[in-house]
Amino acid sequence: MTTFTSTEIQLIRRPQGWPVAEDFRTAVVDHPALQPGEVRVRNEFISVDPYMRGRMNDTRSYVAPYPLGEAIKGGAVGRVVESASEELPVGTAVLHQHGWMDGVQAHADTFRAVPEIPGLPLSLRLHILGMTGLTAYVGLTAVAGLKEGDTVFVSGAAGAVGSAVGQIAKLLGAGRVIGSAGSAEKVTLLTEKYGYDAAFNYKDGNVRELLAAAAPEGIDVYFDNVGGDHLEAALDAFNDGGRAALCGAISAYNTTDRVTGPDNMANLITRGLRLQGFTLGSYLHLGQEFSERMNGWFADGKIAFDETVVDGIENTVDAFLDMMRGANTGKMLVRV
Amino acid sequence: MTTFTSTEIQLIRRPQGWPVAEDFRTAVVDHPALQPGEVRVRNEFISVDPYMRGRMNDTRSYVAPYPLGEAIKGGAVGRVVESASEELPVGTAVLHQHGWMDGVQAHADTFRAVPEIPGLPLSLRLHILGMTGLTAYVGLTAVAGLKEGDTVFVSGAAGAVGSAVGQIAKLLGAGRVIGSAGSAEKVTLLTEKYGYDAAFNYKDGNVRELLAAAAPEGIDVYFDNVGGDHLEAALDAFNDGGRAALCGAISAYNTTDRVTGPDNMANLITRGLRLQGFTLGSYLHLGQEFSERMNGWFADGKIAFDETVVDGIENTVDAFLDMMRGANTGKMLVRV
Repeated sequence: MTTFTSTEIQLIRRPQGWPVAEDFRTAVVDHPALQPGEVRVRNEFISVDPYMRGRMNDTRSYVAPYPLGEAIKGGAVGRVVESASEELPVGTAVLHQHGWMDGVQAHADTFRAVPEIPGLPLSLRLHILGMTGLTAYVGLTAVAGLKEGDTVFVSGAAGAVGSAVGQIAKLLGAGRVIGSAGSAEKVTLLTEKYGYDAAFNYKDGNVRELLAAAAPEGIDVYFDNVGGDHLEAALDAFNDGGRAALCGAISAYNTTDRVTGPDNMANLITRGLRLQGFTLGSYLHLGQEFSERMNGWFADGKIAFDETVVDGIENTVDAFLDMMRGANTGKMLVRV
Repeated sequence: MTTFTSTEIQLIRRPQGWPVAEDFRTAVVDHPALQPGEVRVRNEFISVDPYMRGRMNDTRSYVAPYPLGEAIKGGAVGRVVESASEELPVGTAVLHQHGWMDGVQAHADTFRAVPEIPGLPLSLRLHILGMTGLTAYVGLTAVAGLKEGDTVFVSGAAGAVGSAVGQIAKLLGAGRVIGSAGSAEKVTLLTEKYGYDAAFNYKDGNVRELLAAAAPEGIDVYFDNVGGDHLEAALDAFNDGGRAALCGAISAYNTTDRVTGPDNMANLITRGLRLQGFTLGSYLHLGQEFSERMNGWFADGKIAFDETVVDGIENTVDAFLDMMRGANTGKMLVRV
């Protein structure tokens, strides 16, 4: 019998504000003998995502808080290195939700085999061909009700979700698509790579004024990854009947101050606006539809993407924090 | 040829905060000779409504601001006293939008004949059988998507719209219906007359705590007439998938301070909530459906209502201000 050891990052204390090193611990796990039905997987890439910050808090949410003393759960891709399951022979590429660890031993049911695309890394299953792409797609379609010709505004537009939103919006028939990001380099990427018609650096001034200048005829759809001043700016820019898909509010995830909402909520009434929050769990039934369309777009070369890769399981917490500070372009990943 | 004179209340200055007497003027109008197609109408009741405050401002909205120097437009009911139109003979009861005046001369096209209900005043066309009732109905159905068994929370529940919302919600199959109002007397009316299962006086303490106590299992639908702390409390009380119909925000209509939004907008994302603002103009196509159902409920004695009546066109501004301060129970009206 071979031994199997893995290193994982556990949450040991609930962060107050920005997480710090002391909120986590690195643990080495010696796994017991492989049981029938189980497999051992060596991860290749681990996903760090904004939603994970919410799960570190002990507050009511759509999913339970992360338990203290356990590894942070989340998306990862890897390869089966030892198998006691006929479904997943050694060598199979798999996607799973076991999270922040370099290897995992568990029942084959907890892994999903994914087809490999020649010349491309497995990591795409963690973003453009996976949950991130699906988030962009359902936010635009089922949540915001995108219509042909709509002007769309996307905040956090150079991030993993945002970079997909702009491209998918254009492919679905949006008119003008406007994005915001936090550096001049990202703004250039938005218009030159991700299909945005206009973009601005939100650090250049007042977001309300920057958006008004970029969208002189108003916006119809807002895909919100940021919240705060971006949501407020969108409420001012909305045309009558505007719709927001609220996907994230990264501006508020790490503050301990009381966050106040938009000062212009009254626009919801006078302009007949809709704000719809969402998490992917309610829209997984659209996964098949998304995959068919995305695979087609991808095969036609219509989808661009970026990855910001950090090496080493030991750097996972730093990668997570860097992502929340906006250090990434496209998807932030840890390569194991 | 007979002469026809009317008294009207005109807006002459845009109010800052709470309107004051100097923002209005009373004008006596001598009307010219009646032209073919025109009628002269003596009003019986004039409506004063919260939305009128918004139209007194010079800000972008779903309808144009009231022009300065003209009478305040709005709902009124009266009777034709002189007619040069075959459609509207003398004596016809009519509903119209000419507004704050004791009489009006205009083309017959601008009036709608309404059937009279024996023993009941024409004023019902200005509330439970009119726009107010329709507002309650479309807010619950088309806007909030009320489902059988839903727990519903209504703010401003003893007002014209709110008193209709509770009853209609129960008739449409809601489970528990909870209302808030601003006095012990109103709270009693909510549960004893308007069909509410539970009610609280929002002046008794913190709205969040009062609502949490009244809705220990959470709410599914919120019909908002108030905004501010009520909307914030609702966002905390919402079950997953909750939906708010935002109809009014009377708490903010007369403030000149910067209003901040709810401090818990993040709940929209984590619980998959929807906030949908609306004004009646987008839902007038549901008027026929509403009338059929409401007429049936009304004939079956299932609809209770109240009117708070102020006499005299010269008291219209005071009636309007009293209504915004919550002095009314049910519909606030001016009897001419």
